[in-house]
Amino acid sequence: MSNTKNDGGGAGAGGAPSPDATLPVLDRQQVGVLRRVGREWGRAAGDPQAWRRALPVDPELGRFPASSEIRPVRFGRFVRVATVGGQPPVEAGGKDTPTSRLGRAGAGVRHVLLGAPLRSTAIAHERMRKLVALPVLSADALSSVAYGPEAMLAVLVLAGTAGLRYSVPIAATIAFLMLAVGVSYRQTIRAYPHGGGSYIVATANLGRLPGLAAAAGLLTDYILTVAVSIASGMEAVTSAVPSLRGDVVPIGLAVIGVLLAGNLRGVRQAGVLFAAPTYAFVVAVLALIAFGLYDAAGHGFQPTATPQSTATEGVGVLLVLRAFASGSTAMTGIEAISNAVPAFQPTEWRNARTTLTWMVGLLIVLFAGTVALVHLDGVVPDAQETVLSQLAHRAFGPGFGYVFTQAATAAILLLAANTAYNDFPRVLYLLARDNQAPRIFLRLGDRLAFSNGIVVLSVAAAAIYAAFDGMTAPLIPLYAVGVFLAFTLSQTGMVVHWWRLRDRHWRKSLIFNAVGALLSAIVLVTAAITKFTSGAWFAALVVGLFILVATRIRHHYEQVAAALALHPHAVEVPGRALTRPRPRDGAPPAPSAEAKAEGEREAESEETPEEIHPLLIVPIAALDLAGMRALAYAASLRQPVLALHISASEEEARRFRAYWNLWGDHLPLKILLSPYRTIVAPLVNYIESLHDQRPDLTLTVVLPEIVVRHRRHRLLHNRLAPRLRRALRPLPKIVVTTVPFHV
Amino acid sequence: MSNTKNDGGGAGAGGAPSPDATLPVLDRQQVGVLRRVGREWGRAAGDPQAWRRALPVDPELGRFPASSEIRPVRFGRFVRVATVGGQPPVEAGGKDTPTSRLGRAGAGVRHVLLGAPLRSTAIAHERMRKLVALPVLSADALSSVAYGPEAMLAVLVLAGTAGLRYSVPIAATIAFLMLAVGVSYRQTIRAYPHGGGSYIVATANLGRLPGLAAAAGLLTDYILTVAVSIASGMEAVTSAVPSLRGDVVPIGLAVIGVLLAGNLRGVRQAGVLFAAPTYAFVVAVLALIAFGLYDAAGHGFQPTATPQSTATEGVGVLLVLRAFASGSTAMTGIEAISNAVPAFQPTEWRNARTTLTWMVGLLIVLFAGTVALVHLDGVVPDAQETVLSQLAHRAFGPGFGYVFTQAATAAILLLAANTAYNDFPRVLYLLARDNQAPRIFLRLGDRLAFSNGIVVLSVAAAAIYAAFDGMTAPLIPLYAVGVFLAFTLSQTGMVVHWWRLRDRHWRKSLIFNAVGALLSAIVLVTAAITKFTSGAWFAALVVGLFILVATRIRHHYEQVAAALALHPHAVEVPGRALTRPRPRDGAPPAPSAEAKAEGEREAESEETPEEIHPLLIVPIAALDLAGMRALAYAASLRQPVLALHISASEEEARRFRAYWNLWGDHLPLKILLSPYRTIVAPLVNYIESLHDQRPDLTLTVVLPEIVVRHRRHRLLHNRLAPRLRRALRPLPKIVVTTVPFHV
Repeated sequence: MSNTKNDGGGAGAGGAPSPDATLPVLDRQQVGVLRRVGREWGRAAGDPQAWRRALPVDPELGRFPASSEIRPVRFGRFVRVATVGGQPPVEAGGKDTPTSRLGRAGAGVRHVLLGAPLRSTAIAHERMRKLVALPVLSADALSSVAYGPEAMLAVLVLAGTAGLRYSVPIAATIAFLMLAVGVSYRQTIRAYPHGGGSYIVATANLGRLPGLAAAAGLLTDYILTVAVSIASGMEAVTSAVPSLRGDVVPIGLAVIGVLLAGNLRGVRQAGVLFAAPTYAFVVAVLALIAFGLYDAAGHGFQPTATPQSTATEGVGVLLVLRAFASGSTAMTGIEAISNAVPAFQPTEWRNARTTLTWMVGLLIVLFAGTVALVHLDGVVPDAQETVLSQLAHRAFGPGFGYVFTQAATAAILLLAANTAYNDFPRVLYLLARDNQAPRIFLRLGDRLAFSNGIVVLSVAAAAIYAAFDGMTAPLIPLYAVGVFLAFTLSQTGMVVHWWRLRDRHWRKSLIFNAVGALLSAIVLVTAAITKFTSGAWFAALVVGLFILVATRIRHHYEQVAAALALHPHAVEVPGRALTRPRPRDGAPPAPSAEAKAEGEREAESEETPEEIHPLLIVPIAALDLAGMRALAYAASLRQPVLALHISASEEEARRFRAYWNLWGDHLPLKILLSPYRTIVAPLVNYIESLHDQRPDLTLTVVLPEIVVRHRRHRLLHNRLAPRLRRALRPLPKIVVTTVPFHV
Repeated sequence: MSNTKNDGGGAGAGGAPSPDATLPVLDRQQVGVLRRVGREWGRAAGDPQAWRRALPVDPELGRFPASSEIRPVRFGRFVRVATVGGQPPVEAGGKDTPTSRLGRAGAGVRHVLLGAPLRSTAIAHERMRKLVALPVLSADALSSVAYGPEAMLAVLVLAGTAGLRYSVPIAATIAFLMLAVGVSYRQTIRAYPHGGGSYIVATANLGRLPGLAAAAGLLTDYILTVAVSIASGMEAVTSAVPSLRGDVVPIGLAVIGVLLAGNLRGVRQAGVLFAAPTYAFVVAVLALIAFGLYDAAGHGFQPTATPQSTATEGVGVLLVLRAFASGSTAMTGIEAISNAVPAFQPTEWRNARTTLTWMVGLLIVLFAGTVALVHLDGVVPDAQETVLSQLAHRAFGPGFGYVFTQAATAAILLLAANTAYNDFPRVLYLLARDNQAPRIFLRLGDRLAFSNGIVVLSVAAAAIYAAFDGMTAPLIPLYAVGVFLAFTLSQTGMVVHWWRLRDRHWRKSLIFNAVGALLSAIVLVTAAITKFTSGAWFAALVVGLFILVATRIRHHYEQVAAALALHPHAVEVPGRALTRPRPRDGAPPAPSAEAKAEGEREAESEETPEEIHPLLIVPIAALDLAGMRALAYAASLRQPVLALHISASEEEARRFRAYWNLWGDHLPLKILLSPYRTIVAPLVNYIESLHDQRPDLTLTVVLPEIVVRHRRHRLLHNRLAPRLRRALRPLPKIVVTTVPFHV
């Protein structure tokens, strides 16, 4: 909900002209190197204004005063570009208009599903009133009442009636836990008024690896929130309409598809629309509890006897702990408000704290009330009907009240799934900003949503949902580990935070957070041990793998940044040694004088124009327009040019030479013979031989490329340019230029 | 088997430096244009030797005398390239060595399956003796005895015993047809000693569309030859080993996989290996017939009564015609020898004719003998056991003779399927050479086989085979149409050929071919009508679609060739109007003075260096090594340069400007602001605005590109270069250059 500001400071931008990562701040040494490189350029350039005078265009596009040089032009995603000659402006987004028929059809579908592309000014940072923030931010937490108590009871019922008796004390413990964690997060809100997600708090206070572990917990949490919420929502629906039971999986997947499309559209948290389900759910469950208690009061709060069920397990510590771990899933989503502090009206942190208090209060009431009613009514979990549905049936009968409760339950669960769509891409964004996830997660889509993260979440959630046949119960063990891992690390981080800060009230805050951290850790350990075989191992594995992959990604980005850093005239340029494929027989060539000279030349860093000696190579098939244009382009650069032609036979070679002479033999020509009509290998071999002859040259391969209008026509052309580009890519000092010819 | 020489003369080579198509011969007008263009270059160049003196490398790689300029260097697919300084030569094929681990594993699998890449000198044009040519070239034809009679009987048995009585007269008609078609092809061999495939003969004598129809017939024929031969071969196997019956489809698909791999390896027609199955089959069937006739002689050639079978249809003209059409599939493959005349020892056409005569003789004997035996033994088609298997059981009992017959049958059918692997890619090659199929079918693979055609054939045959559950009978109706379409067109073409030529004996040849054409046409019409609903419609549809697609492909290549033809200073350059995307609201802009001037400038054909005014644009992310190298490269060309930077915020923009000044502000810099971190659209919009400002400039976008070693690391980089290249491709006069930086 809030786009937290950069606080990590990304590393090198990675060679691309991209604002993906923030521009790194140079240290003093780097500044020195930059100056030194600049001086070398200066020595060469002579007149520093020469380049500026030579420029044949007005980079300000003729619209800005000359003094605006420092002030950059604001160039958004879909800003219209006015042209110079008074021509109508280019259609906004016209660049992205696909030209093929299929592409246009695809764009049409996109338009219907996702809406027109948004201008970047469309992002508005709305501030939420507390009465709006409460339902929007607490949907995830409150909706867990729909499956938390049920998950707990489903464990206890294994021990039959004896087991069910433990529901009240376990629920009381969980309610206390909710209170403790709520108080703990109140401290986080005060300390991180810009939003204190678990990843940020854990990274800032505990370090990189705990931060990654928290992120892994969060990401699995969000994926499972989607899967569990939809599974549970479908159960709310099938409890009311049992005939749908067979189609749970396809319907659930369709719902994920709708969430995917909606979030790619960039659904705003439109107040009323998103507030309604939460309030409806709260009203329904409160009414349920009130009716139930009134009924129970009628017979003196005597619990109805549960139907006798056969115990498959005895009551033991392990069973109680498992029930406790399952029931704690009712706490998921409790951290949402602490992430979203900047979305509140001022004073943000104070309003956020108030809202959090309300939310925790409501959560405890709903949770405790539900469990109490279950106890009083003697309800037992049932595969055909959810516990909440049974309670509603008893309280309201089959009429409006029941249907309203089920509808509200399904709606709030859908809303809870939707909040994961806001949070998951944001965590990935933060990870990518810190170089711990691929940079594609930094990229905003057409509709200003983090499309890549949204797609990853949808695919993962859909896979999990389908793999578990859309059932809630088997998903619960996976769920608890991630959630409480993030809770524990976040609150432990807060303890360190207060210890480091030691401002006013730090002792109280530290104690509250320490209690929260301790309790969360207990749940985490309980869940991890008791649920290990039934799914927690998988969650642990995912977290471990995630940390490993993120670390390697960070390592790669750091290597790249190091390789990219300026270090003029260093003896060894790291990475350069990798670029020359050595002969595979292993024996290194004897270091002849040439080889040594080559080695020294290769160490040049090609940072100044003087270090670059171009030779343009134009592979040409025929003296047609495309070939002629490539030759003319190469010649127009006034650098040495060599034309290459590949012939299938000597007779054809002679013919081409004759045409070449007819044309005037203006450029040096070399004809290669390829009797079996292969192209790429002879070209690459020849170009590499030229490189070996003069390793100091930077060879530029100028390729004529035919551009066809329709994608289907591309199949008809041999697409030499991409093939050659791929083959030349691993070779050093080879620049590839494509000169398009539009048909 | 023989690579027929070009006789079509391909059109333009299509902008790529490729010997895919033969170099077109220029007509006088084109020569004039070429001279004119050359003169313009000459006016500009001044000293014609300047370019040659400027060349910093020796294009002959220091190994050839200067006089070798006309004689091109022979540069094969895997020729080792000796380097100048006495260094060891670059490993052959080293360019294609994949760098990623997965790629290496893939290459390893390839190596095991396909063998090491071949040098191009490995193609040897073996000449075949008649005794080798006969089995190799007649496998397809003779193997049809395994399913032809059975297909005929399968129709007749629908009319019960009464129907089966017609088998002998129908077989006699087919035998006569074989004779006539055989004699007809003898004429083709004499007329086309370089190989006279149906496509070549029909195109040369009847025109393009009949040629395409013949090609379509041939291609469907070859696909079905694979499917039918393997289906029938599997039936030969399951007749002997009934327990395999359930696994026919996977085994058949595995066999296609083996054929695919073997042919990608480029299996040579190794004499003995390929001769054995054919001779074994001939011996087995001749022995079978001899035994059977000896038996029959014992009871005075009195036919055994067939087991009474219930007739589901009456005997009628339609039934007889259907049986005739099915039985004629025994003639498939009869044209093979006429394709392969150059593969014979001299005098080629005479040896080929002799071999054809032997083959037709054998075919008639085997076919007629089999049908006669079926008649005498009273054998009835059976879903569990092939007719040939039943005959072999009766003649030899269950012992060695029977197993040998079945094994030989399966082997010759496999060989027949393999011959399609030689012929199918060759027809596609011929089509591609004539611009009627995508040019990828011109390309030779590593192992000097036409890999693309081989893959297409395998996929198509496997799909058909699996779709028909590996059963022969339902495939027969599809088969006949293609085969006899090709026969009819080829022989009609021969009639036209003799009429045009009218040399010695032309009347006799014409009559023989006319009879062949007429009889083939009768079978074609019979098959098309009687089998229409049971599959011939599909074959007809495929042929029609093929002709349509091939025509459109040809049309496209012709358009491209026309667009590529030199026509300096024409007022309108075709295709150029297509390259500027117009505003989509439809209303054309008012033709202002600027727009007119632009239009005129755009009509320039960019054929001489004087017409090209370069401006280099360097999008740069950071002043790191990759960015610096791109700037240095651009500056080294000594043309106007403009650097572009995209910033996410004004603060970052200011910072970048500060670093730029620190470096020395050597080049003009323009900073674009993209608040939501998009890159491609602002860059493309800005570049297009520059183009609108000065449409006479050729803008060169110089992109730094990070090259990583491992494919998996590519995901971690934003791959801006390909995205930008794609976005810029439809714009006119924009050249894209990538300057690699190896990490």
